[in-house]
Amino acid sequence: MTTPNLPDADQPELRGTVNLADLEALGRSRLDRNALEYYASGANDEVTLHANRAAFRALRLRPRMLVDVSNVDTSTTVLGLPLACPVGIAPSAFHGLAHRAAELGTARAAASAGSIMTLSTFSNTPIEDVADAAPGRMWFQLYPCIDRELSADLVRRAEAAGARALVVTVDAPFVGRREPNERHRFALPPHLRVPNVASRDHLARLESESGSQLVNYFQGLIDKAFTWDDLAWLRSVTSLPVVLKGLLTAEDAVLAAEHGCHVWVSNHGGRQLDTAISSIAALPEVVDAVGGRVEVYLDGGVTRGTDVLKAVALGARCIFLGRAALWGLAAGGEAGVRRTLDLLQDELRLALALSGKQNLGQVGRDLVRL
Amino acid sequence: MTTPNLPDADQPELRGTVNLADLEALGRSRLDRNALEYYASGANDEVTLHANRAAFRALRLRPRMLVDVSNVDTSTTVLGLPLACPVGIAPSAFHGLAHRAAELGTARAAASAGSIMTLSTFSNTPIEDVADAAPGRMWFQLYPCIDRELSADLVRRAEAAGARALVVTVDAPFVGRREPNERHRFALPPHLRVPNVASRDHLARLESESGSQLVNYFQGLIDKAFTWDDLAWLRSVTSLPVVLKGLLTAEDAVLAAEHGCHVWVSNHGGRQLDTAISSIAALPEVVDAVGGRVEVYLDGGVTRGTDVLKAVALGARCIFLGRAALWGLAAGGEAGVRRTLDLLQDELRLALALSGKQNLGQVGRDLVRL
Amino acid sequence: MTTPNLPDADQPELRGTVNLADLEALGRSRLDRNALEYYASGANDEVTLHANRAAFRALRLRPRMLVDVSNVDTSTTVLGLPLACPVGIAPSAFHGLAHRAAELGTARAAASAGSIMTLSTFSNTPIEDVADAAPGRMWFQLYPCIDRELSADLVRRAEAAGARALVVTVDAPFVGRREPNERHRFALPPHLRVPNVASRDHLARLESESGSQLVNYFQGLIDKAFTWDDLAWLRSVTSLPVVLKGLLTAEDAVLAAEHGCHVWVSNHGGRQLDTAISSIAALPEVVDAVGGRVEVYLDGGVTRGTDVLKAVALGARCIFLGRAALWGLAAGGEAGVRRTLDLLQDELRLALALSGKQNLGQVGRDLVRL
Amino acid sequence: MTTPNLPDADQPELRGTVNLADLEALGRSRLDRNALEYYASGANDEVTLHANRAAFRALRLRPRMLVDVSNVDTSTTVLGLPLACPVGIAPSAFHGLAHRAAELGTARAAASAGSIMTLSTFSNTPIEDVADAAPGRMWFQLYPCIDRELSADLVRRAEAAGARALVVTVDAPFVGRREPNERHRFALPPHLRVPNVASRDHLARLESESGSQLVNYFQGLIDKAFTWDDLAWLRSVTSLPVVLKGLLTAEDAVLAAEHGCHVWVSNHGGRQLDTAISSIAALPEVVDAVGGRVEVYLDGGVTRGTDVLKAVALGARCIFLGRAALWGLAAGGEAGVRRTLDLLQDELRLALALSGKQNLGQVGRDLVRL
Repeated sequence: MTTPNLPDADQPELRGTVNLADLEALGRSRLDRNALEYYASGANDEVTLHANRAAFRALRLRPRMLVDVSNVDTSTTVLGLPLACPVGIAPSAFHGLAHRAAELGTARAAASAGSIMTLSTFSNTPIEDVADAAPGRMWFQLYPCIDRELSADLVRRAEAAGARALVVTVDAPFVGRREPNERHRFALPPHLRVPNVASRDHLARLESESGSQLVNYFQGLIDKAFTWDDLAWLRSVTSLPVVLKGLLTAEDAVLAAEHGCHVWVSNHGGRQLDTAISSIAALPEVVDAVGGRVEVYLDGGVTRGTDVLKAVALGARCIFLGRAALWGLAAGGEAGVRRTLDLLQDELRLALALSGKQNLGQVGRDLVRL
Repeated sequence: MTTPNLPDADQPELRGTVNLADLEALGRSRLDRNALEYYASGANDEVTLHANRAAFRALRLRPRMLVDVSNVDTSTTVLGLPLACPVGIAPSAFHGLAHRAAELGTARAAASAGSIMTLSTFSNTPIEDVADAAPGRMWFQLYPCIDRELSADLVRRAEAAGARALVVTVDAPFVGRREPNERHRFALPPHLRVPNVASRDHLARLESESGSQLVNYFQGLIDKAFTWDDLAWLRSVTSLPVVLKGLLTAEDAVLAAEHGCHVWVSNHGGRQLDTAISSIAALPEVVDAVGGRVEVYLDGGVTRGTDVLKAVALGARCIFLGRAALWGLAAGGEAGVRRTLDLLQDELRLALALSGKQNLGQVGRDLVRL
Repeated sequence: MTTPNLPDADQPELRGTVNLADLEALGRSRLDRNALEYYASGANDEVTLHANRAAFRALRLRPRMLVDVSNVDTSTTVLGLPLACPVGIAPSAFHGLAHRAAELGTARAAASAGSIMTLSTFSNTPIEDVADAAPGRMWFQLYPCIDRELSADLVRRAEAAGARALVVTVDAPFVGRREPNERHRFALPPHLRVPNVASRDHLARLESESGSQLVNYFQGLIDKAFTWDDLAWLRSVTSLPVVLKGLLTAEDAVLAAEHGCHVWVSNHGGRQLDTAISSIAALPEVVDAVGGRVEVYLDGGVTRGTDVLKAVALGARCIFLGRAALWGLAAGGEAGVRRTLDLLQDELRLALALSGKQNLGQVGRDLVRL
Repeated sequence: MTTPNLPDADQPELRGTVNLADLEALGRSRLDRNALEYYASGANDEVTLHANRAAFRALRLRPRMLVDVSNVDTSTTVLGLPLACPVGIAPSAFHGLAHRAAELGTARAAASAGSIMTLSTFSNTPIEDVADAAPGRMWFQLYPCIDRELSADLVRRAEAAGARALVVTVDAPFVGRREPNERHRFALPPHLRVPNVASRDHLARLESESGSQLVNYFQGLIDKAFTWDDLAWLRSVTSLPVVLKGLLTAEDAVLAAEHGCHVWVSNHGGRQLDTAISSIAALPEVVDAVGGRVEVYLDGGVTRGTDVLKAVALGARCIFLGRAALWGLAAGGEAGVRRTLDLLQDELRLALALSGKQNLGQVGRDLVRL
């Protein structure tokens, strides 16, 4: 249960972190209000934001003893890709707000840790550069765009760059109301670009327009009429596996499986529909509904190795880190994200050993008292 | 999801509000203790007052995805009247305490927003004036009075003025104990009248009497012996639809349906029987009991678009705002009420879209995890 | 719903109280630490003390509407004795700690209010004097004493003085650990006597003994071996009805009924076995178990008219006030106790009216959502 | 219910303690940060640490009345050994951190109180000396060691010294993450030895090595591959009864019974797998699973006599004190541990009497409302 040497020899504060809460505190301390409110806020009263964490904490583990745990294996696969542990990076916009390394820092950390980077369409780094930084370990997140040619172009670029799956965000036809961003208009700092979808000149023009918010521009790109039937179009553009991110019900999980799509249980980190069910509470019905036909992932509220373990016990193949990765990035760039992943893997390995499990295949629903 | 231009160009504080909590804070700041305690207080320990909000917050939504939500329709009808969204104004006494525009401000806002104004018998503005301010969009609230001629006269005036329904308050044969008003005797300011039931001279005489409280006078008007059988008398006076406001049980809902009355689920904003069940917790058994024979409405604890959505999901056709409208009125007169309604409609529209619903007809009980 | 004129014309603070919480605050302010800790403390961590109130608060009422409540009747009977409302005075020791009027104040208030006074064996006033102060409205509380002749003598005195029932406290073979009284030894002030069981000289001698506590003396009197079979002895001494105070289970309730005893559900105000079930939570199983064969009473946690209503709804014929009566007594002597009873009766009358009940006979379990 | 004279005549602070919370406060005040963090901390977020206590507190007792409780017997037996009450000392490392008397103080208190001392392998006092201090009242705790000869040697020494059972800790193949100890490296003070497993010279050498923690050394001794099958080896070394400490599930309890081992329900005081089920919540399924074939014990969260009673009611034969004994030891050495045991026995005796139980044999599951 040792922590590998990290490229953070010159970052004593990072070395002093012992858990993800420390990394969050350190990361927050390094952000200005603009970035902090953008990352931290949830929709409206932030009920779901807090419920995501509370629901994990309320679950109780039923560990088994006297099992040979001298060699605990945390590895898994997602869509056939081996992962060091069932923890990936969820897509989030604008990693450049957190650190100058931006998505390259996150991607390098994910790759070096044997994890997987899910790149947001709204990244501050071009798809191809991120793909180079995480060779063979990148998924690409896509919003269904009104301009299908734009979508298709993004998909083709991602596929060409080596992305291994498309993660279609389906819970954000409109952007949720994160009220801090209503009170203090979020602004993309001048040095940041959003190269996959707009030129910097275009953005500058948008921001100089009175009364407009950048977020509205991006919202305007999204196709609010994209439905299950339109997945056929997506299939016509790419042969990549499709993951639907943002499902929370058995009903939608069945539809996803019928359409051959994998299911990413998420409420967008509590940033979309406030008081939506927490992701871990939604997981069991989703897992039951797909019945093993497709893979099921989850994000939302994971801050401990025991959270990862609980999600796996309830049927998730992998969990993804949203804010946690951003706090790590803010705390120390690539090294901060790597420390986030390493701490979580260490915690998971220890949690597996203390639960009497040699590998994730032995983790089942009986490990949790619901 | 844009907010229309409001007639509040000269009210920068109003423009800065992003939710109903902001409007409540602003409205409270503009009231003196006499008015604030009258509006804000609940009965006794205010258990039900707080439970109304907490019960909404505790319900979890199960949103659906990949539905075409490019055109979300929030409209509904109440008793055949089209509403822009399922949010009306609940009756409350003495709008003049909140703003000089009094009930005219509330009514104009309701009318311009395509909502409905329920006018209290104990308004500071005559029935006819309010009806003119909300043409075709007014219901009239009635307490069953000991003096049946007084009741009949009020009903006839309301009907003649164009009221579309009578809302009979059935949960207040006696006035609940709002203890702040016991400690600091509530006084109607001298400039305010209660024109539907008493002359100003009469009121002045009442208030000058030692030991008497205005509220006792109004309580004295109410018929504590009014029962289901007496609804026949009401039918003999008017052909307007009758809504019974203040029902909380399946048993009473069945009786209401049998008497051809619509049901308004309410605990009077927690101002009558403390520890009575919260309105949203009472809703499902009421809806099941009436089985679609009559319409079901609700008030109590609604401050978010997701609250409206949950009430509709559990079977309410429309919800009504009590204190929330008064906070808006105090915050900015007509413009403040309008902003209240607009913010709530915006939130509802967004909540519908993020729940994968194109209109209220698609909203059912499966949207809520009870 | 008016409050009658009280003999407290010279007590403006008392007139300013609007609920029992006010009376508690006023009463507490008039007690020294010795008395306050004796009255206020519960056993150990005071879990049951707090649970008694919390369990009442958590119950939700299901009121009915459109019932003729112009004449609400709060009256009931206990063992055939008419009471103005189902609220009596529970036995507690040493009323002299609260007010110079001691048990005479409490008894006079109970009698004048049409209530019932349950006199503690450990009163500061002789049985006969209290009986005179509450003619026909006194029950006498008895601890089973090792010295049966002492018990028999007390019973005969009580019966001769007109007591209408014997209330045998069965939950205190030993005195619970009220830790404030462990830290600061409780002392009976020199001016107080305990005339029913010991001479003042005896008490003075006891208190002067090093290491001894008065409470230990009284504990020493109690027969820890008194069982169901010994009730036959009690029957041989008196023909008064017997009430067993301190039962909390269906099993004991069945035994009580089989022995022809009435059941007083109580956990001794949380002063005996900490974490024992709250009295209102225990009530339903007790009521079901006795099946109407005997009367069921309750004390513990009642501070509101709605609490009385809930206890009646769940099957209690009458509730009894312990600390609440003492706070009233401390706050204003007889007038304070009377105000306590009057406020509670007013609250109950209003709660009945707002629940659509004309009398207690109409109050059933369907009034509560468990 | 008297407290016997303790050898603490010169410790007025100890005499002033009235419950285990007092002893904890006093004990904490006498420890430096190094020792305090070592004793007090739980794993990670300390969810299980707090749940252990909260779960006891939430259970409600259903006491019976009118039982002869003039002679309450708290005694029990463990593996045939009579105990004054069902409270023993759980194993914990390094009692020397708490008091100069170290394990000798704890052992003498346990022996004089008729309790049982479970000695940790990682004690600061040799096995034989502790055995002499608690003749016939010692169990020996064993970690399964990689070096089986070391284990065998420890077992033989314990058996020769008179240990009556082996308690094999099965929930710690790895040491849990107690984060305070990560932040401030725990150090064994120079004057302390760990004589059962290492010479002082060896320890000094370990501690002087840069980057190493003492805890890692001890962890390194433990056999992470020790399984149910290896119990046969343990049987070949000793004929002592074997108790498996750290089981939390029915599944493992069945296996234990099948292997002829007694079951000690524990989550290691919340120090191993955080969010593991609380010990009292796990107890019923364990008791049901073993069906009386072997004895069941419990530790975790016991601070009150009612906690002991609840554990017995749910099927534990004896509970064991971990931190509570250490707080007592820190508060006053042997006398402090004795006071801890005496207060708890007094509380248990009173709780039994107030529950209407004459002895532990009468305590069953019906005493608890789950």
